Amino acid sequence: MTRFYSKRDLQFQLFENQNCLELTQIPYFADHSEETFRLVLDSAEQIAEKSLRPLLTEMDRNEPQLIDGKIRIHPGMKTIIRQFGQDGWINALFSYEEGGQQLPWTIHITSGFIFQAANYSASVFPFLTTGAANLIRTFGSKELIEKFTPKMYSGAWQGTMALTEPDAGSSLSDISTTAFPTEAPGVFRIKGQKIYISAGDHDACENIIHLMLARIQGAPAGTKGISLFVVPKKRISNEPNDVLTQGIYHKMGYKGAPIAHLMIGSNDACEGYLLGEANQGLKYMFQMMNEARLGVGMNAVAIASAAFQASLAYAKERPQGRKINEKDLSQAQVPIIEHADVKRLLLFQKSVVEGSLALLIYCAILSDKIAHEVDSSTKKEQEALLDLLTPIAKSYPSEMGVQSTSAAVQILGGAGYTTDFPVEQYYREARIHPIHEGTTGIHGLDLLGRKVLIQEGLGWKLLQREIQKSVDAARAYSALGELRQSFENQFKKFNHGAAQLLFKMNQGPEIFLSDATLFLEASGIICIAWMWLEQAKTAQKALNTGAAEQDFYFGKIETARYFMEYELPKIKGLIERFHSTSYPTIDMKKEWF
Amino acid sequence: MTRFYSKRDLQFQLFENQNCLELTQIPYFADHSEETFRLVLDSAEQIAEKSLRPLLTEMDRNEPQLIDGKIRIHPGMKTIIRQFGQDGWINALFSYEEGGQQLPWTIHITSGFIFQAANYSASVFPFLTTGAANLIRTFGSKELIEKFTPKMYSGAWQGTMALTEPDAGSSLSDISTTAFPTEAPGVFRIKGQKIYISAGDHDACENIIHLMLARIQGAPAGTKGISLFVVPKKRISNEPNDVLTQGIYHKMGYKGAPIAHLMIGSNDACEGYLLGEANQGLKYMFQMMNEARLGVGMNAVAIASAAFQASLAYAKERPQGRKINEKDLSQAQVPIIEHADVKRLLLFQKSVVEGSLALLIYCAILSDKIAHEVDSSTKKEQEALLDLLTPIAKSYPSEMGVQSTSAAVQILGGAGYTTDFPVEQYYREARIHPIHEGTTGIHGLDLLGRKVLIQEGLGWKLLQREIQKSVDAARAYSALGELRQSFENQFKKFNHGAAQLLFKMNQGPEIFLSDATLFLEASGIICIAWMWLEQAKTAQKALNTGAAEQDFYFGKIETARYFMEYELPKIKGLIERFHSTSYPTIDMKKEWF
Repeated sequence: MTRFYSKRDLQFQLFENQNCLELTQIPYFADHSEETFRLVLDSAEQIAEKSLRPLLTEMDRNEPQLIDGKIRIHPGMKTIIRQFGQDGWINALFSYEEGGQQLPWTIHITSGFIFQAANYSASVFPFLTTGAANLIRTFGSKELIEKFTPKMYSGAWQGTMALTEPDAGSSLSDISTTAFPTEAPGVFRIKGQKIYISAGDHDACENIIHLMLARIQGAPAGTKGISLFVVPKKRISNEPNDVLTQGIYHKMGYKGAPIAHLMIGSNDACEGYLLGEANQGLKYMFQMMNEARLGVGMNAVAIASAAFQASLAYAKERPQGRKINEKDLSQAQVPIIEHADVKRLLLFQKSVVEGSLALLIYCAILSDKIAHEVDSSTKKEQEALLDLLTPIAKSYPSEMGVQSTSAAVQILGGAGYTTDFPVEQYYREARIHPIHEGTTGIHGLDLLGRKVLIQEGLGWKLLQREIQKSVDAARAYSALGELRQSFENQFKKFNHGAAQLLFKMNQGPEIFLSDATLFLEASGIICIAWMWLEQAKTAQKALNTGAAEQDFYFGKIETARYFMEYELPKIKGLIERFHSTSYPTIDMKKEWF
Repeated sequence: MTRFYSKRDLQFQLFENQNCLELTQIPYFADHSEETFRLVLDSAEQIAEKSLRPLLTEMDRNEPQLIDGKIRIHPGMKTIIRQFGQDGWINALFSYEEGGQQLPWTIHITSGFIFQAANYSASVFPFLTTGAANLIRTFGSKELIEKFTPKMYSGAWQGTMALTEPDAGSSLSDISTTAFPTEAPGVFRIKGQKIYISAGDHDACENIIHLMLARIQGAPAGTKGISLFVVPKKRISNEPNDVLTQGIYHKMGYKGAPIAHLMIGSNDACEGYLLGEANQGLKYMFQMMNEARLGVGMNAVAIASAAFQASLAYAKERPQGRKINEKDLSQAQVPIIEHADVKRLLLFQKSVVEGSLALLIYCAILSDKIAHEVDSSTKKEQEALLDLLTPIAKSYPSEMGVQSTSAAVQILGGAGYTTDFPVEQYYREARIHPIHEGTTGIHGLDLLGRKVLIQEGLGWKLLQREIQKSVDAARAYSALGELRQSFENQFKKFNHGAAQLLFKMNQGPEIFLSDATLFLEASGIICIAWMWLEQAKTAQKALNTGAAEQDFYFGKIETARYFMEYELPKIKGLIERFHSTSYPTIDMKKEWF
């Protein structure tokens, strides 16, 4: 069986390059240890290999279908979802009192990485339920929690996030699904429609619990008038709740996970239960959205990881051509991994996958610390840094995951384009991530238009400080001098360019934000280069102290060199834009296309 | 119906920006005129709209199947292939004596662009037959020509190019299919297998004529021992010829065109007819391959064009969000084409599609001139320039076509990921082109390792000369000063970087060629920027002389500005590599991955 992730690398990321064990000093996680973390990850690997992986191709070839108003999914998913529930994956993050394991999110999301790399479609179901249940337990009344969460934890019921509407995609302020008060407090009649609802209906669970954004009749316009409701497909009484599956979307990839078009309250008989306070819906949702966004980054890395491993295995086995200075045709062909350009495509993938994974784990540890930080000024700083990093950690893996899976296809050549190998499936699946949970363009605006600017640039300054610390610490490793110097030079140019961009604020938001996506891209490259500097340091330290597994550590340092030589220079073209005063994307008129 | 190409732009490219009418001064094309060219293109559009386009989705959803040893394709293809034959498309290039129309290849390939943009899968069949028939008429005996070509011209028989084998993909020198002499002169018994043979078997034609590379028993090793054979599926006598369809490949995209795995002579009963001289097969094939490579570039542009048009139509119609400085939520949402970042994605596509089309038409006109040039020193120069440009004109559209269709998906967002819109199909189809007819890596080696170096750099110097001419002529347009200056600056840096790269030859081929793919990428950006400088000049000239259609010409100039501001700066990161003396892609060991 082809590997779909590198266990060795994941352990390096968690226990060597970053120290996730410092989380066990937080009282909530005090029962945990390296041993429990490894057990969780091993158990994730087992489920991934034995249950999820075998369905990868089948679920792609046999898409869910809408039959008689109900979506039918792959029959194997019922067992898998129940297993996730029974083994405690869905509520692993929650407290012992809630039946959970008080697991750090860091370990939960890296377990997720293993599931997603094995079979992205299958991994979607339990993580959606966790997110929805988490919203109910965080903002809901005791009654709502008791009514809904236990069956969600067990995997009997599916949870969803129901945001998008036909006229409200990127523009959530235009949501028009309406909630009409009833005589019962907290109970509303909901009416509207929702589209693109992941796992919005299927036959592997007994009920579907939608966490739905809607506007209470008479609420203020825009995002300030949006509330969050629990809207089950069936009521607790088991009666239908007037949530009808109007359609199913057929997609390019991750076909195993159904996406539904729902009609809510077409017969004026849909009950929804207000979660928390009225008009706070978007705020509540965004609390989950930040984790969801890092989650999308992780999905993207996971698929890129599976594609990288598949193309690496192929490159080691497939003989084609000879070394470039070998003219003797009677010599046997060499495996294509011997060709520099194939190694370049592999190094590219390795640098994207392991660099992104490092950044996401950095963010996850930060997130776990924030949730339990008691010092308010420390917490404020941590939050500012994580808020700033979130659009980057969502977008870099998503955008580069597309290119990384494309490199995997390229290594396999014609074979990679056929369904005989899984890389074409990964290529199709990877394409969703620059769209999911906010498009890249939206995250560009979020980063430059909000995250960089808020609190007098606190998050931005903290990022600078952390990167500078990292550079300074790297000076101790003379073997890494060239690598560090490359990074330092480009980092200075980047900061200079970013400062230049800030001056443009003076010319109004359209000019200032016109290259926000490019700024996001450049920030991503800088952050991943930073993560590679960190990994090179960790590897060099291991080599200096005579570690075994020299191959592994040499590989880390060489990949860091690759990143500084091939990826980091890409910011030069981007920075040129920050200094430019020419704005063709603004000046272009729609009639001119 | 959504447009799939811009007729206005194609006319601009052929008759304004470049002057394809100068070809009518060549005696072979003397009967042609702007009127006949327009008639041909109009007629291509009609077939594309009425016959090809309606099958686009159906052919994707109902893939060819191998049933009882025979591949069944969409039943509509039989009519289409016959129509191509009857309307004279298959032999349009050939002389009146051969029943052809003496049409310039430039007009043939731009007609192909229209077919491919309408339905890439359907367009594949006739063009393969043209290529195969062309090989027979160029190198074959009178007997072979008379036996095989008439039914190919009529569309009754399919032609193919049968090169690839399980152990010989990029490495054609390793072909092992063998031809054993028989008593009949020119007749051989062929034995071996071929994979990935496009249109290698199907039920829309009565016979399949393979132009097959094989090695005559005892021939020298490597490319010098490869011969070209005509190998029909059925002999002229209508007996089967022991060419068995062993399998069909299911692919990610252009599913309507079948790709076959063929067993040749399993029962020692396959007859093949030697084409031309023994051991000249690769030379003959490459004569076609150069056109085939430009053809792949055109396929890539065509799909990118269809995706661009689909996303442009969507962006004009889809309301979402408000202008960035509009805070009043009671205002209606605006079409997304009003957002700068969406315009950026559209300008990117427009710049790739129209820039690549310009380069391909430039190459096509050059190719037509070469075929009829009588002055040997002029011809030598033209050939050197076209040889140099071919890997660029194949690879830039192929690589950027992938990114361009990806931008189309992004504009549609979630909708673009569903099968409700055609962009996801274009995205899947576009991915083949960096693989077809030589991967991008192979073309990088071809460009830097061969085309730049041969004849003391003749082709390379001619390219420099032509670009410099273009820059000098642009000085006459003061309105384009900034744009020209940007190009001139980057062009200088590129030449400086390229010179630096040449010094590395001294260190042997591995180092010299390790960044050949990056050199190809940078060369592509420079050539397309050059094409945009040319288009901007043509547009400015039209505006200066008071042309109507100002919107069209302003759009051209703005897109040229976009290219100089957003795409051209990407060479900076690439050039940095040419100056570097650090080689991680060489130093990386396979054990380190």
